Amino acid sequence: MLWAGTRLKDMENNNAATASKTPVTLLGLGAMGTALARTWLDAGHPLTVWNRTPARAEALAAEGARVAASAAAAVAANRLVIVCLLNDASVDEALAGADLNGKDVVNLITSTPAQARARAEWARERGARYLDGGIMAVPPMIGAPEAGGYVFYSGSQALFDQYREVLAVPAGTSYVGEDAGFAALHDVALLSAMSGMFAGITHAFALVREEDIDLSAFAQLLGDWLTAMAPAVHQEAVHLKTRDFTSDVVSNLAMQVAGNQTLLDTAEGQGISSELLLPYYALMSRTLEVGSPEEGTARMAELLGK
Amino acid sequence: MLWAGTRLKDMENNNAATASKTPVTLLGLGAMGTALARTWLDAGHPLTVWNRTPARAEALAAEGARVAASAAAAVAANRLVIVCLLNDASVDEALAGADLNGKDVVNLITSTPAQARARAEWARERGARYLDGGIMAVPPMIGAPEAGGYVFYSGSQALFDQYREVLAVPAGTSYVGEDAGFAALHDVALLSAMSGMFAGITHAFALVREEDIDLSAFAQLLGDWLTAMAPAVHQEAVHLKTRDFTSDVVSNLAMQVAGNQTLLDTAEGQGISSELLLPYYALMSRTLEVGSPEEGTARMAELLGK
Repeated sequence: MLWAGTRLKDMENNNAATASKTPVTLLGLGAMGTALARTWLDAGHPLTVWNRTPARAEALAAEGARVAASAAAAVAANRLVIVCLLNDASVDEALAGADLNGKDVVNLITSTPAQARARAEWARERGARYLDGGIMAVPPMIGAPEAGGYVFYSGSQALFDQYREVLAVPAGTSYVGEDAGFAALHDVALLSAMSGMFAGITHAFALVREEDIDLSAFAQLLGDWLTAMAPAVHQEAVHLKTRDFTSDVVSNLAMQVAGNQTLLDTAEGQGISSELLLPYYALMSRTLEVGSPEEGTARMAELLGK
Repeated sequence: MLWAGTRLKDMENNNAATASKTPVTLLGLGAMGTALARTWLDAGHPLTVWNRTPARAEALAAEGARVAASAAAAVAANRLVIVCLLNDASVDEALAGADLNGKDVVNLITSTPAQARARAEWARERGARYLDGGIMAVPPMIGAPEAGGYVFYSGSQALFDQYREVLAVPAGTSYVGEDAGFAALHDVALLSAMSGMFAGITHAFALVREEDIDLSAFAQLLGDWLTAMAPAVHQEAVHLKTRDFTSDVVSNLAMQVAGNQTLLDTAEGQGISSELLLPYYALMSRTLEVGSPEEGTARMAELLGK
């Protein structure tokens, strides 16, 4: 028997209401998987779940989810299989015995583009269509469209188009191409940029935190400033596309390199290490040697290639 | 004679219209000084300008500015003296022979907090009130309130209050305290954070620029993402104030440290150096050793002290 009896009974009671909605299988009930599961249940999708540690499925079972006894059984239950396991190795482990032939696999685990492309090939060899996803949200943002979270998808466009509405239930969707690695690449690129922003934020708080400055008022100024400056990404894109690195530059490389010294001197004066910013300033100085002083910063991305 | 004849004549013709507005002296007509000057002229303030290279004053003279023959003469002309010279050393050089007694000096040059405090003391010794400013804008944002540029001010609150409306003509104002170094500190802190954000942006573009990805579409996603994540500064502020580093954390240090490896592996796979991000990840790992895995990133600012 595939299901525990009481769970099957719950599910049968629920079947009438959910008959018209695409049934979903979800593997992995960590914080993210559980958040995803609730949105499909709330939207009336028949949902089959599996988790390596069965206890994590109990609350969802009470809310109407079927709990499969194995990953293979969960996969067998529905054509659409969402994977939200811990990492790439967990996918091999969980799905070693599953029959994927004819399945539509949507893999939401965090992976590198190379891992995603290899997983797409793995799915193809097993007769499944494959869509890779990169979740740009933390669990509290799932099912809360106003929070702005969304998921990058890449791989089978046919799969994406067929399940577009199902996939849009937990969060917004952004399809970024047939290359199965592109969702991961977009995901990682945005998270990397965020790491940089948080490195800058860390340095900024370090500079002021021991002064008689209200940190919440400072945070408001800091957040507003970063928000106002973020649209500068558009000029970077144009410069990298056209390789005209000087058009519409208002603060050129020469001015920025000169100005960096004040930033470093200030950190020194505040007793703060500039370790988080030094590599950026070093790259800027190297770029100034290669390019023109009138350029903006876009060429720096070219010099970052190994 | 203080003024060139034709310039004096222009100015006299203009006097009736501007008699009720606070007269302003402005030292330094680089791109920023020139942009500031135009906004005061346009608003009807009698304006006296001086620049080491007189040619830069010609266009402004045609627009109604008085052009002083020396910095000392410009200072003598009005009580309110705005300084927008190249750097701290230029202030000593230009004002060596000026009588500052009874003057109200607003220094907008880029400086460290220590330089600003020393300059405030220098002004006090010469009988002047002193306000330091840090301009959070590039010249095209001056006189364009919709662009969101503004100026941090710190030092004499009496001076700031007296000239609040005059100072608000070119850009928004934000008074951040009696400590003359605070405007520079806020300025540098925000610019430092922006350096970090741009380091992240540089890394992100480096990851995708050789792929079949439209860079402008990518820039839109990137800018929106950074804008959506910037408000996380508020939690950092609360954590640093309360030193409870775990409240409301959704992506904790342990998860982030684990996740960083995917970002580094992706850069490696794309042939990109991670030099801009490595110090941040190293600091994060050090912080994880000191704090709890359940914490957010705020404690990192404390570990950045030397």
